[in-house]
Amino acid sequence: MSIKLWANSGDSHFVEPPDLFDQNLPKDLAARMPQSVKDPDGEYETVTVDGQSFRRKMPRMDTGGARRSLTADEFLDAKRLEGESLTRGAAGNGWDVQARLADLDGEGIWAELVFPSLGIWSFNIRDPKLAVAGCQTMNDWAMSIQRQSPRIVATASLPLLDVNDTVAEVRRAADLGFKAGFLPVRPPVSRPGWSSDEWDPLWDAFVEVGMVVAFHIGTEPHTPDQRTGVYHTGRGGAVLNYTETTFGGQRAICQMVASGALDTRPDLRVMVSEGGSGWIPFIADRLDEAYRQHSAAVRPRLTRPPGETLYQQVYASFQHDHRSSVIALTAAGYRNTVWGSDYPHFEGTFGHTQKTLHELFDDVPAEESRRIRIGAFQEMFPHVPDPPADGSEPE
Amino acid sequence: MSIKLWANSGDSHFVEPPDLFDQNLPKDLAARMPQSVKDPDGEYETVTVDGQSFRRKMPRMDTGGARRSLTADEFLDAKRLEGESLTRGAAGNGWDVQARLADLDGEGIWAELVFPSLGIWSFNIRDPKLAVAGCQTMNDWAMSIQRQSPRIVATASLPLLDVNDTVAEVRRAADLGFKAGFLPVRPPVSRPGWSSDEWDPLWDAFVEVGMVVAFHIGTEPHTPDQRTGVYHTGRGGAVLNYTETTFGGQRAICQMVASGALDTRPDLRVMVSEGGSGWIPFIADRLDEAYRQHSAAVRPRLTRPPGETLYQQVYASFQHDHRSSVIALTAAGYRNTVWGSDYPHFEGTFGHTQKTLHELFDDVPAEESRRIRIGAFQEMFPHVPDPPADGSEPE
Repeated sequence: MSIKLWANSGDSHFVEPPDLFDQNLPKDLAARMPQSVKDPDGEYETVTVDGQSFRRKMPRMDTGGARRSLTADEFLDAKRLEGESLTRGAAGNGWDVQARLADLDGEGIWAELVFPSLGIWSFNIRDPKLAVAGCQTMNDWAMSIQRQSPRIVATASLPLLDVNDTVAEVRRAADLGFKAGFLPVRPPVSRPGWSSDEWDPLWDAFVEVGMVVAFHIGTEPHTPDQRTGVYHTGRGGAVLNYTETTFGGQRAICQMVASGALDTRPDLRVMVSEGGSGWIPFIADRLDEAYRQHSAAVRPRLTRPPGETLYQQVYASFQHDHRSSVIALTAAGYRNTVWGSDYPHFEGTFGHTQKTLHELFDDVPAEESRRIRIGAFQEMFPHVPDPPADGSEPE
Repeated sequence: MSIKLWANSGDSHFVEPPDLFDQNLPKDLAARMPQSVKDPDGEYETVTVDGQSFRRKMPRMDTGGARRSLTADEFLDAKRLEGESLTRGAAGNGWDVQARLADLDGEGIWAELVFPSLGIWSFNIRDPKLAVAGCQTMNDWAMSIQRQSPRIVATASLPLLDVNDTVAEVRRAADLGFKAGFLPVRPPVSRPGWSSDEWDPLWDAFVEVGMVVAFHIGTEPHTPDQRTGVYHTGRGGAVLNYTETTFGGQRAICQMVASGALDTRPDLRVMVSEGGSGWIPFIADRLDEAYRQHSAAVRPRLTRPPGETLYQQVYASFQHDHRSSVIALTAAGYRNTVWGSDYPHFEGTFGHTQKTLHELFDDVPAEESRRIRIGAFQEMFPHVPDPPADGSEPE
């Protein structure tokens, strides 16, 4: 039996209590915050947000290649029936911190950067006041979780309809103890893209309070007549739609690099979660080629080649990538590749984390292995304590 | 002085004679084929196609980092004034084959996969008969060029409004001597995406005649109210728009892999030009993760993991990528990475090809260097003769 490897996760999720908004907001506001109602057969859910209604197919997983489909709940039940020690409470409910940590200990996951679940939908809110009230509620709750363990690094939700509100909530979040702010890969539909100078006060605020900008893929806001995350239908649709999600994260990062938002703020750090890390060396090359070969059309001029800024200020997490994301460091010199579990989501490694970590790292030199599993994460969040030594258990 | 390195180019372009359609088509058809009229100040061109009109900003280039902008013509004039031996005729006019080959000899480029220039606009044609007539005219002309040198591998333009027309032109092109057929990264706006089973007869035809499917990035057809290739405006726009072009090529390839079009046709080879090669190991990882983690939703099932199919049947070309596209082979085992010059375009290496080749390959083992510069191209096009030995000139 190989020894237990420990890793920090740059990509994990809370699942908020269903009564979070009812308990903490006036009734008229609570009713307009994101809510999910699942169909009786579990195949679709309907999410309502601020008077809009979105339909979404529920994720499913089969058991090791079999054709039979399982819902998320059925999958977890099947695992329990097989005698595996999944802590259903933690996987299903992010607010039971002790159960969550037991899950993490079992998997060999130490600290986590944790994103909201329902909160992702809050980027579709159209009323600035509702956005502020909703984010404050989510952040107060997330902080109550983070305070229970130094292994949990929560991301602050931010109201994006008025940049003054965004800046105010960044400052409030920093005072509460947040070390990272969560942004969708594309701003709300009424707002300009991340390359716009309208966001400069936000980047200044992140630098001022020393928080990390944390993008999560698959978070594009949209109108109710666009299906969530469905870009491709027909043959190969499921594979294509998941693959497609990386492009939104890459685009957000390119906007921050090409616009000069990072070049002019060398202390600003940006993380993109679940989009993989293996694309970074390639996009660095492509940005540099664009900057040099189309130089006459390039505005603004930058003080460093854009690929260099990407390498220095951007961090990116992957789960399984065995061909690309580790060699991004070992062969292409990109030091900020971060591993992520995506716990408790189905793209993630829950149930096979140790197998995945050994496959990824057994042939990688110790320094590089530790950098990806532990060091790059700690560079962003130096307050997080070291994990147990590989092969040992938490005290 | 370092020795001359030779390379085949997986990405080059013809510039068609301005009177091509007038000379070869009835007047009423010729008038509807793509035509470009430049503004007097050279900043914009207006392209008219089949009753539609598109505005496009002309590419510009400055002289080595200076802020002064030059048009393409001014840039070439400046190079000549500096005493450099550019063959203006070849760079400007693809139909002067001897001048073109003199340029290539000077650069150290041996054989080329050559795409049309104006022909790219033909994907916006809406009349199937016009599409057929236009493609036949372009192909007859391109073949008259290819016949002048075994170093020129022309790509056949294909009418895409009726798949029966597409198949017929693939067969006619193969009979003429074409070894590759040119496709845009997205079909015309009235047609389904490349994952649709409506294209299966086309893939069967490519296998039947033994031709390579050749995608070129930046070829998305669009409606006249969408600006060509302009996805981003404002800060960083030029860098973002060039960077963005790779995603269209990646998406087309993913559609062919995830739909099973390649899995069921193991002899079908696909090339994507100018989109880089460094993304292949990463997208292979992501396709495999999607296929495995979302397996319950995946249709069709494939006989091989999609990443394996991508590695085996897809070829991809890059120009300058010093971080990613060479290590795609040397570190990530992707054998089908192909170098490309993009001659005579501005993203390309014209004027600095030897410098680029030495920077890319001086530290790469001989076998891998030769595979990228020469071997992968010859695997697709085995009729192409070997280049001169490195360090020597053509006989």
